[in-house]
Amino acid sequence: MTESELQAFYHNKAVMVTGGLGFIGSNLARRLVELGAQVLLVDSLIPEYGGNLFNIHGIEDRLRVNIADVRDQNSMDYLVRGQDILFNLAGQVSHIDSMLDPYTDLEINCRSQLSLLEACRKCNPGIKVVYAGTRQVYGKPRYLPVDEDHLLQPTDVNGINTMAGEWYHILYNNVYELRACSLRLTNTYGPRLLMKHNRQGFIGWFIRQALDGEEIQVFGDGQQRRDMVFVDDVVEAFLLAGQDDRANGGIFNVGGSERVSLLDFVTLLTQIARRGSYKVVPFPPNRMSIDIGDYYADCAKIRRTLGWAPRVLLREGLERTMRFYRENREHYW
Amino acid sequence: MTESELQAFYHNKAVMVTGGLGFIGSNLARRLVELGAQVLLVDSLIPEYGGNLFNIHGIEDRLRVNIADVRDQNSMDYLVRGQDILFNLAGQVSHIDSMLDPYTDLEINCRSQLSLLEACRKCNPGIKVVYAGTRQVYGKPRYLPVDEDHLLQPTDVNGINTMAGEWYHILYNNVYELRACSLRLTNTYGPRLLMKHNRQGFIGWFIRQALDGEEIQVFGDGQQRRDMVFVDDVVEAFLLAGQDDRANGGIFNVGGSERVSLLDFVTLLTQIARRGSYKVVPFPPNRMSIDIGDYYADCAKIRRTLGWAPRVLLREGLERTMRFYRENREHYW
Repeated sequence: MTESELQAFYHNKAVMVTGGLGFIGSNLARRLVELGAQVLLVDSLIPEYGGNLFNIHGIEDRLRVNIADVRDQNSMDYLVRGQDILFNLAGQVSHIDSMLDPYTDLEINCRSQLSLLEACRKCNPGIKVVYAGTRQVYGKPRYLPVDEDHLLQPTDVNGINTMAGEWYHILYNNVYELRACSLRLTNTYGPRLLMKHNRQGFIGWFIRQALDGEEIQVFGDGQQRRDMVFVDDVVEAFLLAGQDDRANGGIFNVGGSERVSLLDFVTLLTQIARRGSYKVVPFPPNRMSIDIGDYYADCAKIRRTLGWAPRVLLREGLERTMRFYRENREHYW
Repeated sequence: MTESELQAFYHNKAVMVTGGLGFIGSNLARRLVELGAQVLLVDSLIPEYGGNLFNIHGIEDRLRVNIADVRDQNSMDYLVRGQDILFNLAGQVSHIDSMLDPYTDLEINCRSQLSLLEACRKCNPGIKVVYAGTRQVYGKPRYLPVDEDHLLQPTDVNGINTMAGEWYHILYNNVYELRACSLRLTNTYGPRLLMKHNRQGFIGWFIRQALDGEEIQVFGDGQQRRDMVFVDDVVEAFLLAGQDDRANGGIFNVGGSERVSLLDFVTLLTQIARRGSYKVVPFPPNRMSIDIGDYYADCAKIRRTLGWAPRVLLREGLERTMRFYRENREHYW
């Protein structure tokens, strides 16, 4: 799909993004603003989560921000009205936190998804919803690469609740004809990723440690292979799914262009940063029990259906990411 | 496993059954009392659900009943203490009701499962938990018979929430070493099944209509094939899973001995009842959208692991069921 085709679709469309001040939400918002959409970002700015007002630095005047929590059903009932598309990205994304406080994870990732869909069904049944799912629902892969027919066998509370949250979307599409689909994202990285703490995945934390010249601790033997996807590619997948009704009712893996071991990843990181070092250490028990080992996605379905494929290579993506944080460190550290 | 081996295990064991005044729970309670267990039934007696004090008629003095809702976390924290085994059968089981009131279904089938497991982890980590799952999590089968490696693709809110509720059990087994497993039950029938309304599955309602000499409405073309399992066989599966640590962390289909079309089923029903008739009618829209078509289970895994197989043939089971309701009609109609 060309830029002008995307523009023709999104120009003047009313688009709401939950989790809109977060990492992926704010990158998506930037593209939507470029494409001429009328953008409404909804975010609760929970301190420990990824929302950050600096993420929309420079585009503040070209969109609207509404601070509200997806658990606040009355506000959601109001906010979804009149929207053409809802990119539903709000979530509690820390696997570790989901084990420490399973109820909050349940309220945000499970119950709020249901109430958002109920809000759409009651107040705006013509809306199109694209949900940010996660590869976490697959758990420890039985085979590689993992396609969408792989069993769901989540290994933590977050995986279970997002599994339910995703299936509500598919159900509302199938039963109520509320157009909805899900993108199961692999580890995503890029500018505006949360850097404050290490509870939302290893990528951000490793990047921070490399930039700070610290020693990166790689758990296990470092041979776990993962794919990682640059945020611009993920944003493209959301834009394609939002404008294409062939996506409705579908679940699509969104994976990375390369598969690398964690050791290769940190080697590349420290090369690009020209700082930092790494050390292989045993798994702490609370991470070991929910670790999934190797994971990389088969993305044939989204390529076939929506014409999407990842385009940014890991080295390039990491260089762009590091450049961003070198320039904007004080807003993220 | 022989009766005396079961007795040797369950004699004097402290056993708690949530949903203990319901259909399966009360049949399980009868067997547990016979085996000499110290039985505690926990049930909220929600009027529209399956709990019925008459279900324990004749054994009231040989067990304890505690009226409490699984959503009441403080009570659950207290009640699980000192129990050796928890048969966790409390649930909202109506697919139709789950679509009309998805939040109640979520609270009971999803959140309460999490809080029960938290209660066990905090207050009684040595307990063994056997969860009553459902074939509903598979949704519309991709192949038949359905084994435990079949994808989960639930078609209603109830299926999504019970999917999450089941996986919490597996997670707590895997991460916290709280011994737990799940039995995915197919349509279960027998004495003490709820007969008051038709929102908890077709079997009870068809039996009632046959006994009342009414015209049974079969939706679709009546060719949908299902397996059905007699409650005594299901009770046996629970007893085996409760006493065998090879079940821990496992998910097991519990299916029926025969596969019959709905038309063959109602024909058999009206034969045994010597009353009633049937008519094939189109699906009402709210049932059509969540119907799963043909379903029958592959039960090789539970046979292999626990030595369980269904023993009661459909004709015999239905005769016993009808005899029970002829004698006890006033307590169920």
